[in-house]
Order: sequence, then C-alpha cells, then structure tokens
Amino acid sequence: MKFYVLTLFPDLIRTICTTSIVGRAQENGSIEVIPIDIRRFAVRPNGRVDDYPYGGGAGLVMQAEPVYAAWQEAEKMAGGKTRVLYMTPQGRPFTQALAEQYAGEESLIFLCGHYEGIDERVTDRIVTDEVSAGDFVVTGGELPACMMIDCITRLVPGALHNGMSAEEESFSDGLLEYPQYTRPPVFMGEAVPEVLLSGNHEKVNAWRRNQSVVRTARKRPDLLRSADLTKEERRIADMVLRSRKEENSADS
Amino acid sequence: MKFYVLTLFPDLIRTICTTSIVGRAQENGSIEVIPIDIRRFAVRPNGRVDDYPYGGGAGLVMQAEPVYAAWQEAEKMAGGKTRVLYMTPQGRPFTQALAEQYAGEESLIFLCGHYEGIDERVTDRIVTDEVSAGDFVVTGGELPACMMIDCITRLVPGALHNGMSAEEESFSDGLLEYPQYTRPPVFMGEAVPEVLLSGNHEKVNAWRRNQSVVRTARKRPDLLRSADLTKEERRIADMVLRSRKEENSADS
Repeated sequence: MKFYVLTLFPDLIRTICTTSIVGRAQENGSIEVIPIDIRRFAVRPNGRVDDYPYGGGAGLVMQAEPVYAAWQEAEKMAGGKTRVLYMTPQGRPFTQALAEQYAGEESLIFLCGHYEGIDERVTDRIVTDEVSAGDFVVTGGELPACMMIDCITRLVPGALHNGMSAEEESFSDGLLEYPQYTRPPVFMGEAVPEVLLSGNHEKVNAWRRNQSVVRTARKRPDLLRSADLTKEERRIADMVLRSRKEENSADS
Repeated sequence: MKFYVLTLFPDLIRTICTTSIVGRAQENGSIEVIPIDIRRFAVRPNGRVDDYPYGGGAGLVMQAEPVYAAWQEAEKMAGGKTRVLYMTPQGRPFTQALAEQYAGEESLIFLCGHYEGIDERVTDRIVTDEVSAGDFVVTGGELPACMMIDCITRLVPGALHNGMSAEEESFSDGLLEYPQYTRPPVFMGEAVPEVLLSGNHEKVNAWRRNQSVVRTARKRPDLLRSADLTKEERRIADMVLRSRKEENSADS
C-alpha cells in the first residue's frame, strides 16, 4: 500500500515514518510512504505557498495552485483515482472502523494543512474525505496524518509479524483491553493476580474477558452498545453501570 | 511550561518538537520539551524494558520498574507533584477544553506506552490522567503525545505571536471555521466570493459568521448544542438541519 503525503514538512514525515512499525513495514515492502513537498510547486518567490486571506483576518492561507499541482503529481504517481484525506475538525472522526476501510485501498493521498487553512477552491476540488483527529486545534496535519498512517499500516497484510496482529482483537471485539502484567511477580509489594500464574488457559481467558467487560462498563460505557456480549456478561456490565450511578449520586 | 516525555523513542520526540510552532516556542523559551529515555532505567540486559505477559498471549508488556524509575526522574526534575498523562483509548477524549486546562499547569509528564501495554501495577501508581486520542490503535503514545503538546503549546502565553492566537477563536466559539480564500482572485474559473473583496468589514464578518453556522449545521450538528447562537442564527441552523433531513430521507 502506498501513502502519498502532501506537506510543507517532508523531512518530518520521513523521520516519523522510518521509526518503529511503520519503518519496519517500509523495510519489508508492505507499505511505502512518499512525502511530496508542496513548496516545490510554489508560484510565489522563495518557495512561499501562503498569502493573506481575502476579507482580512489573522494568519495566512495556503494557496490553491501549489496544492493542486502537488496533488496532480501524487495522482500521477498513484496511477489513477485515489482517495484524498484532508485532516480537519470538520471531518468525520477517525476510528478503527474507518482505518479498516482505508486499509483496503491500494494508495491514499494525505493533504496536510497549515496556517489558517487552505484556499477553499482547491479543497473543494480534490478532497474526497474530510477526516478529524478530534475536537482540538493543532498546527498542521502532519502528526494526525502520521498517526492515521500508523493505524492503517497495522492492518495491511504482512506489515506486522503474525504474533502481533492479535493485538488488534481487543478493539475489534468492541471492548477495552484487560490489564497486563509481566516480570517481576511482585512490584512494590503488589503481586500479579494469581489466576495469571495458574497455567490454566481457560481460567486466564475467562478472567481477562471479565476484566475487559468490567473496565469497559466503568470507563467507556458508550462502547457497550455495539459490543458483542453474552447474557451473563451483559448482566455484569449492567451491575457495574448501576453501582457507578449510585457512586455518582452519592458524590453529589 | 515544561513537558517531560517518558518514551522509548527520545530522538523522535526531539525531532518532532523542534519543528514548526513547538520548535519556535522552545526557541523563545515559552516551553521546553524534555524526552526521558525509559531504556536508561532497564533492569534487564541490553536495555530491554519489556517481557512476556503473565497468563500468555501475543506481544510484550513494558515492565513496571523502568517506567517507575523514569517517572521518578521526571518528578524530581519538575520539582514536585505533576500530572501524568497516559495515552490510551480507555481515557477521556482529548479536546480543546481539556487542552485549556492543561495549559494552566507548570509542567506535565507524558507516558508513552508501546507493545501490548504497560504493567498495570505501575500505571495504577503513577498515572493521574488517562487521555484518549481517539477510538483506534496506534503503535505507541509518541504521536498522540506530540499532537497534544502542539495543541497545549498554542495556548501557552507567548508561544504564538499575537497575530496568530486569533486562530483559536473559531474553536472556542463552538463553531467550525468559515471558508478561506487567498490569491489569485480566480482559480480554475472560480472567483473568490465578492463580499470578501468589498472592503466592508461588517459585511465580511456577517458573511463569515453565517458560513460558520451553516457549515456547522451541515457537518457537525452535534456542536450546535453548546454553541452560542443568536435567535436568527438558531433559525438558520434549524433550516439547514431540516433540509439535511429531507435530503437523507429522499436518498433512502
């Protein structure tokens, strides 16, 4: 899978995407990240690609022409119609489900905005997907884009070694992760839960699943609606939710 | 303001946080980002800080001891009780409102997890705030942490030059940004909206505000509940919402 990133900071993209899992996936050839420097397509002197907003106001707006030309280059390299993701709080929230959809594509183009935004006439023409990293303001689209590339890469076949792909399961069954423990068996006087040392896989799995249900009910009850629970698990979740409600009303 | 980042990738943190706004804010002394390498506190040979999970399963878990020691160093450097943010989908969503709270702190410690997670006994002891970058799985906490540092830095007095701080307003009034345009006046046959060339500030502001309301109603109606709208703006938003509903029912 190929990721084209239209950006003012190609070196930053390069550094981030040669680190950790994304770097290893590039090395083994399952993905490739290609930063495209928007400045190369500047129409103003000295590689400037921004200008004052019409109508006044603080900040600078990225010009339509260099963004459009950078996009044309990416499309040509990708060899055809490719989805263009623009990171903006106006978009739909990026989620694991959305990442799974994107992982089915052959290539994706990420458009990283900066300054006060990008001239509306070019985003109107080229952007196919407005995607939000959350309800907050960051300086540029680079970090959100790299975060999404990391998340999508993990779903590309061959990008992770098999042993690791199991990690994803916890999110795809719609529940939060159970707690994890490793050596030493006692840390600051606190021992690892005994069941994990029992060697009884059935018991371990039951305990972990129970922890996931309780934890999800306690911390992210919104996830329970779409989670796949047995009747008994649903009963446990309801119990946690009720005791949470009582705690809350006792507080106030 | 000081940001201590407990991480396995101190160089990545350093590179990201010397770029763009965060880099400039470090140069002018309004913030400082201090990566602390968890590997320096390894208790296993060769700087290994992970081990197999008790109870079995794929992946590796970060050990309690090196994380605890790295945290102790950060607390000592910060000179006292400091909030510790752990990036996990289990946390509360990171938002602009949360960023504003954090911007009031003198220092913050970010704990970046990796692998299958961190031994529960250490996160239980040191983490004060579980914060989520969204409902998706990424390899490490580094990118979410740097994104949060970027967002918080923008709110630290002196980090941005004054002209730019106005950018934040669009989010703090609870509406999406209006569209922006810059030179040239005509791009691919499409002219900039005439009102923006009128030089009439009152008209420009009214047009922009109206665009923000319409756009928020169309793309993020959930934001309208807490937005501060006049009676007339509320009427416009309702109109957009109604026509959206009709479009949707005509589609199906």
